[in-house]
Amino acid sequence: MITAQGVSKNLQNLRNQTPLVHNITNYVVMNNTANALLSVGASPVMAHAPEEMEAMAGIASSLVINIGTLSKEWIEGMMTAGKTAHKRGIPLILDPVGAGATGFRTQTCHQIIKECKPDVIRGNASEIMALISSDVKTKGVDSTESSENAIELAKTLAKETGAVVSISGPVDYITDGASIFTIKNDIPLMPKVTGMGCTASALTGAVAAVCTDSLEAAATAMAIMAVAGEMTLPLAKGPGTFQAHFLDALYSMGDKEILQYLKL
Amino acid sequence: MITAQGVSKNLQNLRNQTPLVHNITNYVVMNNTANALLSVGASPVMAHAPEEMEAMAGIASSLVINIGTLSKEWIEGMMTAGKTAHKRGIPLILDPVGAGATGFRTQTCHQIIKECKPDVIRGNASEIMALISSDVKTKGVDSTESSENAIELAKTLAKETGAVVSISGPVDYITDGASIFTIKNDIPLMPKVTGMGCTASALTGAVAAVCTDSLEAAATAMAIMAVAGEMTLPLAKGPGTFQAHFLDALYSMGDKEILQYLKL
Amino acid sequence: MITAQGVSKNLQNLRNQTPLVHNITNYVVMNNTANALLSVGASPVMAHAPEEMEAMAGIASSLVINIGTLSKEWIEGMMTAGKTAHKRGIPLILDPVGAGATGFRTQTCHQIIKECKPDVIRGNASEIMALISSDVKTKGVDSTESSENAIELAKTLAKETGAVVSISGPVDYITDGASIFTIKNDIPLMPKVTGMGCTASALTGAVAAVCTDSLEAAATAMAIMAVAGEMTLPLAKGPGTFQAHFLDALYSMGDKEILQYLKL
Repeated sequence: MITAQGVSKNLQNLRNQTPLVHNITNYVVMNNTANALLSVGASPVMAHAPEEMEAMAGIASSLVINIGTLSKEWIEGMMTAGKTAHKRGIPLILDPVGAGATGFRTQTCHQIIKECKPDVIRGNASEIMALISSDVKTKGVDSTESSENAIELAKTLAKETGAVVSISGPVDYITDGASIFTIKNDIPLMPKVTGMGCTASALTGAVAAVCTDSLEAAATAMAIMAVAGEMTLPLAKGPGTFQAHFLDALYSMGDKEILQYLKL
Repeated sequence: MITAQGVSKNLQNLRNQTPLVHNITNYVVMNNTANALLSVGASPVMAHAPEEMEAMAGIASSLVINIGTLSKEWIEGMMTAGKTAHKRGIPLILDPVGAGATGFRTQTCHQIIKECKPDVIRGNASEIMALISSDVKTKGVDSTESSENAIELAKTLAKETGAVVSISGPVDYITDGASIFTIKNDIPLMPKVTGMGCTASALTGAVAAVCTDSLEAAATAMAIMAVAGEMTLPLAKGPGTFQAHFLDALYSMGDKEILQYLKL
Repeated sequence: MITAQGVSKNLQNLRNQTPLVHNITNYVVMNNTANALLSVGASPVMAHAPEEMEAMAGIASSLVINIGTLSKEWIEGMMTAGKTAHKRGIPLILDPVGAGATGFRTQTCHQIIKECKPDVIRGNASEIMALISSDVKTKGVDSTESSENAIELAKTLAKETGAVVSISGPVDYITDGASIFTIKNDIPLMPKVTGMGCTASALTGAVAAVCTDSLEAAATAMAIMAVAGEMTLPLAKGPGTFQAHFLDALYSMGDKEILQYLKL
């Protein structure tokens, strides 16, 4: 079971250890993701060149692969870094952005899952479903399915891959195929800010670097997102100010806010 | 004629239909462009790999090609997506960022215009003029010409290409070669925020997805930019806070603000 | 000696001349860097394609090369632009992001230094030290060394390369191998915002475009960063709002704030 106390402890460990989180991510969110990692207490690095993937994944405490603006040239770097992470035993998070929208994305995810064995797969409902059923389509990078509809396929995906599967939505569901954790804070402005899902994946990488239980790490990251969202809502007048205040919230969040806002 | 009522109606349709806008755009503005599209009510996707251009442009409601950080590797994807858009009959917007600054950019624009036949070309005065006259130079990506000086060449460009031409500046001019629409809201901080022109092009794509008249769509997008700018000015203390409040304005804009602020 | 009056004069010249600053920089900071340059009064352009490097560096007033998300494909453009800048006699700034973290980065910096002869090298303590001693490692892109520890190696680097070396940290040190300038404003939130170092390098390029003394230019840029940081601190609630208010401060900074806040 995840608890507010557990979330607090993991966040404290994260801030004490400032783990180096290696991100191979998309152009849209790089700035925001780096800032979220810095704000929460981690040390981000963005690097993708095949020439330095062994070296960079070799000094990192976790690796996050996000296929949001995928190209053939980047897949080689993703595979080398992913295999290095798996070999070293550091946590690997996969964010299958837009899986289901194009075959190129879906197939690349299958290749990463097969060859690099991610510890956590974190996506929206459509993306998670598309990884297990070819009948599901994604509208670009936005979900067309409810998280509830994705639960059974998420369990199957977890069982088949050995990865924890984390579905973000109005309610977040995190499962290892057996247990399911839920985070029930619904933050209405979040889907109006680009890359909040990518931020969730990056935070999952940051927490996983300091928490060996992948299920607990994935749930903690979604809990931190939820609490930061609740802290931000009263201050935001729209998506633009939400983005700025959300980073402030990640930075200033303490035990009190976690206890006050988290809805499990 | 464009009217405040027409702008309101198009914005309402956009929010109701949440069209998927496929952007092949530059690294500088991707985050901001995606957020502007989400804030105004569209669903953005950024994708550029040749391997998925037919698939992505095949599910999109419009396509925006922006050459702001052009490279040879990206041109193939732009051409495939552009031809797919033209074939499917979805609106194609071209933003010729930095045309005139280098031959590489000017020539790539000519190739896109010739082979993909954009419905709207939206740029600053220097860029528009550089597409029709090789005597005009651009200072990097900033205009060195007044919009007024560009009107006649814009009309010629519209007639020669069949595209609506939209020139942004203190006064915006939108023409199909015959009629000219003007938007007279001058927002002094706008040129101090990077990518506001790119945002205008993206919004043009969003409106064009729900409004079949390209001239009206292009003018509506510039009207939405203008109204959001007016809403933002009293809240912004400089370019940084302008950026955040501008997104909020796109999100919260209603009929009342359009009626109050729009200067045609 | 650098003085508050000298900083004011250079800033005024920058705003009067709005120099075109050509940036070949990393994906993470492009938006922010462009906005910082616009806010301070320069005209930024981001471009990296080998096909247009001679043309773009040929119209620019200075060039900033930043290796933050380095790839083999970009090195060719960096080298062509760097050599063009050197040949034309416009200032060249190198930001060796992550030097020391991987051999790929360190070696690329050595190649740029050897073949393009940068006028200023600006980095954090670990990066500067890694350029001169192979014993120093960098944790991703964050410094693991204090600026004080880097001073002697920075002097050596300056003497060996002929470049001014600018080390950012709680105290900034800028040296040409003989003299050392210090900026003592310590802004605690700065390391929590991604790309503030990259912004410092870009501003160094902007000032160098209007100030022929590289040592004075590099120190002026760090002084502008420091004053903007001091102006921002009372307004920022965390890293997110810091970023927005920092751009506002660059835009609104005047002689009064420079005189009030600068600690030399």
